[in-house]
Amino acid sequence: MTRSKSDLDLHGRSESYFPEAPPDAVAYPETTEEVAQIVSVCARHGLPVIGWGTGTSLEGQAQASSGGIAVDFSRMNRVLEIAQEDMTVRVQPGVTREALNEELRATGLMFPVDPGANASIGGMAATRASGTTAVRYGTMRDNVLALEVVTAAGGILRTGTGARKSSSGYDLTGLFVGSEGTLGLMTELTLRLYGQPEAISAAVCGFETVEQAVQTVIDTIQCGLPMARIELMDTDSVRAVNAYARMDLPEKPHLLLEFHGSPGGVTEQAESFGALAADHGGSGFDWATRTEARTALWTMRHNAYYAILAARPGARAVVTDICVPISKLAQAIEETRADLQEAGVPGPILGHVGDGNFHAVLLVNESDPGELARAKAAAARMVERSLALGGTATGEHGIGVGKLDYMAREHGTGWAMMGAIKAALDPGGIMNPGKLVPPAG
Amino acid sequence: MTRSKSDLDLHGRSESYFPEAPPDAVAYPETTEEVAQIVSVCARHGLPVIGWGTGTSLEGQAQASSGGIAVDFSRMNRVLEIAQEDMTVRVQPGVTREALNEELRATGLMFPVDPGANASIGGMAATRASGTTAVRYGTMRDNVLALEVVTAAGGILRTGTGARKSSSGYDLTGLFVGSEGTLGLMTELTLRLYGQPEAISAAVCGFETVEQAVQTVIDTIQCGLPMARIELMDTDSVRAVNAYARMDLPEKPHLLLEFHGSPGGVTEQAESFGALAADHGGSGFDWATRTEARTALWTMRHNAYYAILAARPGARAVVTDICVPISKLAQAIEETRADLQEAGVPGPILGHVGDGNFHAVLLVNESDPGELARAKAAAARMVERSLALGGTATGEHGIGVGKLDYMAREHGTGWAMMGAIKAALDPGGIMNPGKLVPPAG
Repeated sequence: MTRSKSDLDLHGRSESYFPEAPPDAVAYPETTEEVAQIVSVCARHGLPVIGWGTGTSLEGQAQASSGGIAVDFSRMNRVLEIAQEDMTVRVQPGVTREALNEELRATGLMFPVDPGANASIGGMAATRASGTTAVRYGTMRDNVLALEVVTAAGGILRTGTGARKSSSGYDLTGLFVGSEGTLGLMTELTLRLYGQPEAISAAVCGFETVEQAVQTVIDTIQCGLPMARIELMDTDSVRAVNAYARMDLPEKPHLLLEFHGSPGGVTEQAESFGALAADHGGSGFDWATRTEARTALWTMRHNAYYAILAARPGARAVVTDICVPISKLAQAIEETRADLQEAGVPGPILGHVGDGNFHAVLLVNESDPGELARAKAAAARMVERSLALGGTATGEHGIGVGKLDYMAREHGTGWAMMGAIKAALDPGGIMNPGKLVPPAG
Repeated sequence: MTRSKSDLDLHGRSESYFPEAPPDAVAYPETTEEVAQIVSVCARHGLPVIGWGTGTSLEGQAQASSGGIAVDFSRMNRVLEIAQEDMTVRVQPGVTREALNEELRATGLMFPVDPGANASIGGMAATRASGTTAVRYGTMRDNVLALEVVTAAGGILRTGTGARKSSSGYDLTGLFVGSEGTLGLMTELTLRLYGQPEAISAAVCGFETVEQAVQTVIDTIQCGLPMARIELMDTDSVRAVNAYARMDLPEKPHLLLEFHGSPGGVTEQAESFGALAADHGGSGFDWATRTEARTALWTMRHNAYYAILAARPGARAVVTDICVPISKLAQAIEETRADLQEAGVPGPILGHVGDGNFHAVLLVNESDPGELARAKAAAARMVERSLALGGTATGEHGIGVGKLDYMAREHGTGWAMMGAIKAALDPGGIMNPGKLVPPAG
């Protein structure tokens, strides 16, 4: 446990534009039992407990809004057991997804969920994260099979079993995944693994309009093509990565794709996709099975955030994400683009279009408070647009403090139901207070 | 609303061996509002409310253990909206899976979850059902995207949105799926659909031992072969279907398989599988793309239950299902077979081996109470074996009244947590009392 200023400052910061909110102390437990002791003490004294992974959440989920103890899982970062035949792995919450995949490399297995940042697995589960590969492999909801949790009373609970499916009782695992630390702290996670694909190919394809790109995605999914990744970059994003990574993609909307399968399978997938793209005016379709070409492509995509930031020197980003029914995706993107243009907010758009999920990176000059206000207002309109189109306030970044205002509108009486569940499982209200559920009445 | 004796009797019966437990009355609502009115009245009077689909549940989920009103959804059986581009469908709970797929046929889409019985979609969601195709398409947990629910207070709640994924708050949809009517009644469900596969092929393959068959399944999944179905029949099951359906399969364990994909893809999958099976002594591997041959194969599998019943004329079945980590599957099956043999209980085994899930159909002469007792004891040992091997008490049949005794053992303090959630959402305890959660008290 530490109260050093640098530790407190670090754990009060977030990746996004929220004001700092440091905890009163930071604990670095090394075992589940230590976590249980910390929570027990906090429960006795009514002290807030906030889980901390790598600090890469985007809606201020890990901020200590009312002070309390930040439980930093960086010392609980071990891969505990790889069950090769069951294709599962048991890990501590602090392991990052890159470290996990490094340990898995020699086994022929992989954990594919990839939110971009090298987040901790515990943080990813708490946020119900997803990312570029969710279109094929699902989100954290689909890939967490079992948990060990320290409850709000300081008890140790196990949810799920080693079986791949179950109809035994309420899905407690699913309840904790996405609960943002408001019901308990995950101290161990059993994850589903996948075989490393025998062959991988990647491709890039330009379109005249976002509408055409999205229509190609819809056709692709309807045909059952098992795309591993299918990402959209709008024209502004393409300009930014061209400048940042010295690429020379034509300045129009692009899809970035990845195919996983057998050598014959990825060829067939790429050819089928090429034909569908051509039907919608896709051009410059180019696919590569060479590792270097693929790596360059996905490095570009992963660096798109930094490329976009670099497009406006000195700017800070308000990053927001929404997710709509895919039939409404082109409309949502076009309306967002027109809105940002009218509001004078630079905001390249990119996203996981196979899921109907996209991000706008709103660039803000920090020294101009008017700009931040305009960007936040535009982000709010994005969420309202999403809800009006039958979508959700967030596809993968979560609620935290950033999107609390939309919970009542999205969930109606369901938000009160979440509050009732919270009150039943954390009557003292110590687990990450101020996040996700209605303020205790 | 009716109180006719035939209606009460029908709704007190179950598919399995449980004693009859009829409700006091049966309601046949036609709208969500009518369901809400019924539940409101019951809430005021503390009267139990039990949802009823088609009565095909296997653990007595829909029995009126303490009387009350059975809410029969047979008049709420419409397909409300097919969203072709979003690949989703909104349905009322009373529609059966076969009727739904009939309506979908012309759209090129399908709802693949197939528990065998022509169950209602509402019942399948309430039980978190799965079946032969879960290895590829997932269970009801994975395929229910949103719900309309009448709560225990008689309110109308909507969970989820039209978006394919979300990190907005607790996963209420996932909480209701598998809750067996103990938290509320589903009155509308939004389901995920899939494209009808361009090509389908089916295959059958014999093995000398269950161990070899299971090892083939493990290799198949590790290779990432996207099997649509992969089913095991043990030697006793093979004998039963040979006699019932006039087949002539060799009397040894068999895998039944189905491949979905492009024409080239299914060929490649079948050939890859054939090679893996040969590595484990598989013989008689035979695959067919002709519809008639496929239909014969899956008709045989779906009729296996009746074939097994027919193997002992006049017998009744105690059907039970467990699900273990796949690495423990061969052991679980072998130990179960030895146990049944020793106990003198005829019990062919068959199952969804890609998920580690299998069923034993224990044949009981009803006029001999000793036999029923021995079969129930053997079924109990199956569950204990499953839990000892890191599995679950039920992969897909659910808890109902049949498996309540194992909840504490499987879930530990998690069972009390389920009780706390139940108490928070149904404080009067009127929703399907006596099922799933600990007795109030």
